[in-house]
Amino acid sequence: MDFSFSYYIGLAGIMVFTISGALAALEHKDHHHDLFSVFFTGFITAIGGGTLRDITLGNYPVSWVRDENILWAIFLGFLLVILLPRLLTKLKGELFLFDTLGIGIYTVLGTRIALDHGVNFFASALLGMISAIFGGVIRDTLMNAVPFIFRKEIYATACLVGSVLYIVLNVWDVNSNVNLIVSSSVVVAIRVLAVRYNLGLPKIKIFD
Amino acid sequence: MDFSFSYYIGLAGIMVFTISGALAALEHKDHHHDLFSVFFTGFITAIGGGTLRDITLGNYPVSWVRDENILWAIFLGFLLVILLPRLLTKLKGELFLFDTLGIGIYTVLGTRIALDHGVNFFASALLGMISAIFGGVIRDTLMNAVPFIFRKEIYATACLVGSVLYIVLNVWDVNSNVNLIVSSSVVVAIRVLAVRYNLGLPKIKIFD
Amino acid sequence: MDFSFSYYIGLAGIMVFTISGALAALEHKDHHHDLFSVFFTGFITAIGGGTLRDITLGNYPVSWVRDENILWAIFLGFLLVILLPRLLTKLKGELFLFDTLGIGIYTVLGTRIALDHGVNFFASALLGMISAIFGGVIRDTLMNAVPFIFRKEIYATACLVGSVLYIVLNVWDVNSNVNLIVSSSVVVAIRVLAVRYNLGLPKIKIFD
Repeated sequence: MDFSFSYYIGLAGIMVFTISGALAALEHKDHHHDLFSVFFTGFITAIGGGTLRDITLGNYPVSWVRDENILWAIFLGFLLVILLPRLLTKLKGELFLFDTLGIGIYTVLGTRIALDHGVNFFASALLGMISAIFGGVIRDTLMNAVPFIFRKEIYATACLVGSVLYIVLNVWDVNSNVNLIVSSSVVVAIRVLAVRYNLGLPKIKIFD
Repeated sequence: MDFSFSYYIGLAGIMVFTISGALAALEHKDHHHDLFSVFFTGFITAIGGGTLRDITLGNYPVSWVRDENILWAIFLGFLLVILLPRLLTKLKGELFLFDTLGIGIYTVLGTRIALDHGVNFFASALLGMISAIFGGVIRDTLMNAVPFIFRKEIYATACLVGSVLYIVLNVWDVNSNVNLIVSSSVVVAIRVLAVRYNLGLPKIKIFD
Repeated sequence: MDFSFSYYIGLAGIMVFTISGALAALEHKDHHHDLFSVFFTGFITAIGGGTLRDITLGNYPVSWVRDENILWAIFLGFLLVILLPRLLTKLKGELFLFDTLGIGIYTVLGTRIALDHGVNFFASALLGMISAIFGGVIRDTLMNAVPFIFRKEIYATACLVGSVLYIVLNVWDVNSNVNLIVSSSVVVAIRVLAVRYNLGLPKIKIFD
């Protein structure tokens, strides 16, 4: 097991993904809002992307099956939501930053894992992005909503830019810790700028 | 292959899950209600949870790929639905008991399989529950509805209690057949009581 | 790697699935219609069925992770959509034929892969069908719609007939290239006839 800097950041990301998923369950009008619904939505949001990456790669055992700490990080996030639901709802601005840090780290770690499996660059970039966004996609689908990645300002694309950058810097033999920090910072920067200035990708119109 | 008591109970559970999925398709207004829709919804409901457990564990070959009997049990359930749709709709009370027995057995078998793979207790408990409930979650998602686990009286939580109990009794070296019967009975008992007395978990409210 | 006839037909099928997925995103009213949404919907449609087949079989590495050409075929389909959206929308009749060819080939290739893994006939037939249809199922689910396989004229059933035929001819030791052509042609023929004459399977009615 790897108890490095990125490991603890990853656990923090898991906790924040859990909180964002649990809050989404609380805000959904068709949900029962009971303890289980809130826990399970947080759990799925937190582990969905990494699990899909791992089963697509055949990277067994899957992270949360191997490392119980991930489940305790989820449980901690869940406890915070049931103890302090109003506070966390008010802190959404602060949570946004945390969530953004989470997708930055997740993108890079996912890309790293794919490269370590000898996967081609194109697929590695996609798997890095999928690691970061797919928990949210599953959360929204279970909520019976069109996934936010199809609606919001630049989100998945920020991850894609970060994973491509990580691969390029990796080919150039940049130190992997430096690369982790630079590439995930670029994800965070693009996402923060996109939200602040309401930036989206060009649209394609076929119907007038 | 294991032709024990729990094997045949498991096949019966598969058949009942198929029937419940197929009836859900028949009752859905946006569905075509043709032979394929009914079969496929039953199939997905029956194998969804176990398949997700197996691919998360890397437990290959997946149960229905390895054991054709599972598919014949599904086919038998499907035949019953197309031959006796009105009867089965009337028997819903009786089917509820069968479905409850099914989730009880599934929970325990799923937990057992996870423990046999050397998985930590927390993840094993979750995988036991996922085995039992996720076929229904996929069924509801394909039906474009919020999954029933987010709406109904205590359901997934009953499975979680059963899988935790199985793990505790397993640590205490209780005979595994005794443990199977006790733990799955607890799932059934909680579920029956929850439906009879309309019991749910505490809700969390953030909006007044 | 296999650069045979069926390999190139498979790549053409991937490209057409991408186009059909991307056009579906463009036609969906709740979507943002930006470059990423269109790409990602096309990507999921193209690789969803094969990926689900591979992870169910434990057939690693998954096709698009192993073979970058699949991703370039997807990228090419995506480029065509963003460069020629109006033209492709008008060509839907022609694309229908291509899509039908795609599901024919996919069904047979998926069945072949399952048989090569020593899977029983019943499961192989289902996995052949799943290879062909599940990308579309995931696409529709992410679009928050009831999957088209539950609505349209005979579609999945055509695949099921084709996979069963492939298995029968395989047992009879028919040459595998001949079998590929015959079985996929049967899928295409059933689908074309079903659309032309608006054929559906018998419905099951329980409510009057």
